[in-house]
Amino acid sequence: MNINQNFLSLQDSYLFSLIARKVKEYKEQNPGKEVIRLGIGDVTLPLVPAVIDAMKKAVLEMGSADTFRGYGEEQGYGFLRKAVCGYYAKKGVLLDETEVFISDGAKSDLGNILDLFDANNVALIPDPVYPVYVDTNIMAGREIRFINGNIENSFLPLPDPALKGDIVYICSPNNPTGAVYTKEQLKIWVDWAIKNDAVILFDSAYEAFIQDGDLPTSIYQISGAKQCAIEFCSFSKTAGFTGVRCGYTVVPHELVRNRISLNKLWLRRQTTKFNGVSYIVQRGAEAVFTEEGLKQTRENIRYYLENARIIADTLTELGIWFTGGKNSPYIWLKCPGSMSSWEFFDVLLKKYGIVGTPGSGFGENGEGFFRLTAFGDRESILKAMDRIMKMKF
Amino acid sequence: MNINQNFLSLQDSYLFSLIARKVKEYKEQNPGKEVIRLGIGDVTLPLVPAVIDAMKKAVLEMGSADTFRGYGEEQGYGFLRKAVCGYYAKKGVLLDETEVFISDGAKSDLGNILDLFDANNVALIPDPVYPVYVDTNIMAGREIRFINGNIENSFLPLPDPALKGDIVYICSPNNPTGAVYTKEQLKIWVDWAIKNDAVILFDSAYEAFIQDGDLPTSIYQISGAKQCAIEFCSFSKTAGFTGVRCGYTVVPHELVRNRISLNKLWLRRQTTKFNGVSYIVQRGAEAVFTEEGLKQTRENIRYYLENARIIADTLTELGIWFTGGKNSPYIWLKCPGSMSSWEFFDVLLKKYGIVGTPGSGFGENGEGFFRLTAFGDRESILKAMDRIMKMKF
Repeated sequence: MNINQNFLSLQDSYLFSLIARKVKEYKEQNPGKEVIRLGIGDVTLPLVPAVIDAMKKAVLEMGSADTFRGYGEEQGYGFLRKAVCGYYAKKGVLLDETEVFISDGAKSDLGNILDLFDANNVALIPDPVYPVYVDTNIMAGREIRFINGNIENSFLPLPDPALKGDIVYICSPNNPTGAVYTKEQLKIWVDWAIKNDAVILFDSAYEAFIQDGDLPTSIYQISGAKQCAIEFCSFSKTAGFTGVRCGYTVVPHELVRNRISLNKLWLRRQTTKFNGVSYIVQRGAEAVFTEEGLKQTRENIRYYLENARIIADTLTELGIWFTGGKNSPYIWLKCPGSMSSWEFFDVLLKKYGIVGTPGSGFGENGEGFFRLTAFGDRESILKAMDRIMKMKF
Repeated sequence: MNINQNFLSLQDSYLFSLIARKVKEYKEQNPGKEVIRLGIGDVTLPLVPAVIDAMKKAVLEMGSADTFRGYGEEQGYGFLRKAVCGYYAKKGVLLDETEVFISDGAKSDLGNILDLFDANNVALIPDPVYPVYVDTNIMAGREIRFINGNIENSFLPLPDPALKGDIVYICSPNNPTGAVYTKEQLKIWVDWAIKNDAVILFDSAYEAFIQDGDLPTSIYQISGAKQCAIEFCSFSKTAGFTGVRCGYTVVPHELVRNRISLNKLWLRRQTTKFNGVSYIVQRGAEAVFTEEGLKQTRENIRYYLENARIIADTLTELGIWFTGGKNSPYIWLKCPGSMSSWEFFDVLLKKYGIVGTPGSGFGENGEGFFRLTAFGDRESILKAMDRIMKMKF
């Protein structure tokens, strides 16, 4: 018996535990001072009434013999897959219901999708990046090549003609940088993927934050994308479902490799290794796409976006370089005074009582950068910006 | 780009689609006749009041800013892991809360656990068997050796001294055979696993059906098991959660291979590729372990067990050989008159209007056998048994 030796190559992640330790120490040393958290990657507003009503109804159904539901289809109930198709249709993307797979969240599917690919494929991963892309590939023993995000490309790297690889991760709006690819930029990626027989894993978890009508909210708004891309989305940030757990993955029928439909492969994977999402949760998710649900969840998103605008305006006024802050809940800034990520973390905490996330935790290219998030409450954010405005370096 | 070529070795499963087609044809040809389904592997009774109340409360909490919950721990909320430990303590099994991982169901974890093991390990799988064990190993390219279940060993195979393998699946009470290992028999497996440095994947999804106090409801009731076994359980059959989705997996700290704790490996796997189970669902699951919840869910189980007893008594009277029928919702019978599984299916459907599941769908050794389930309603089962009592071969 041997364990999967690839696990031994994983690096321990100390990012969030180190942040927690430093904050704890600061609080012990400064018992009177208020700490404001701008590092939260989780939503804070409660679920909207349309979702609550739908889930209450679904719970009651499960308690009555006439309306009780046992096993559902592994790929999700038809009512929810239909609602997802309706949402895409409004974006000008026509999907068949069998191209939509309901999941318990984008994170699960982003990891599990790798089951479909040969271990010898090369994964191309942007740096900085959501660490899950890296770790899931290490677990599978796959070779990883990093694509550099930096100030020169505004953290929106594009393929150079020599770039080779089989699986490429694109997250737009991006976590951690908040940067959003334009349609023209995504078209370059799609053309590159088709030419190189690669598959794009497109993480659109933050698409609902896009307000600018010219920016793509789905990769399928780019011609050719159905031949080369799988799209992962989630209700986590769209509708505050981080604790409810629901997402969806789109695998187009046109996506074929080795003459095999990836849609059929994924269906086989899911029917074998997954048993579907809770009926109650799926009813809640369905309600997100109703007129009321969209209105209410978009109100919450506008609240977070206004927080982001307030942060962005402050940084602009201070002359600090950043990406994000609009069409995204994230603000990715260059640490002032050429400080390292952790130096800036310490200054921000100790001088201003503000907690953020060091960019170096997201990859080598994140060194010297810093992530702030807009998921806090308005009052705290205004207070934090007041403090930051007094910054002197 | 290459797909995972192991998927090409998967065999298409036509079992349930073929059953559905045959039933459809029969109904079209016999529009007046009532068909009774004794092939259902899904629960039919609604959720109990204790669970409904807990989930209603949790839904309301999610709608209010004071009580809203975002991301929970990937391994599950402390309140539920503690409740699981309490349930085990009553069985005489002491677990630490960090040994319990809450999942969206046993099926997911039974598949995903294979991430921890080297692809070169040999998997030992009983035949007949729940097809998921086989398919998940094929997907990973792992060599499979079958262990024969048959009338001679009452479908409870034991290792012979020459048996070699790294991962072994044991499901007790068994799906599809309903057979239950005794403590003495499980001890033989535990001793074999320790001697051979193997890991037992123990599927205890049907443990709540065990009424006989001498039979083990957890493999950890066997001394030494914590050094060699992972246990998978589920609220699906315990509390009718097939559509709610919740289970738990126990990975003891004592379980170490290559000097690495499998508990730590699994924690790393889950924190990387999973994001936890819905808060609402976990509150429902917690309620199962309350005094009221246990009382109410056990009443449902007694209802199914009484169905099983009625079926078993009928078969006994007819002199038909079977396993299960007590301590299990399944009855696994030898087809009368030396019929093949599908021959008996056709006779049962066409002459008696009863639908069951051909044993050959669960592996080569299932040929000539047949599965009936006790998840239907009492009236239908009594009616079906009336018809079966008239059987002549």
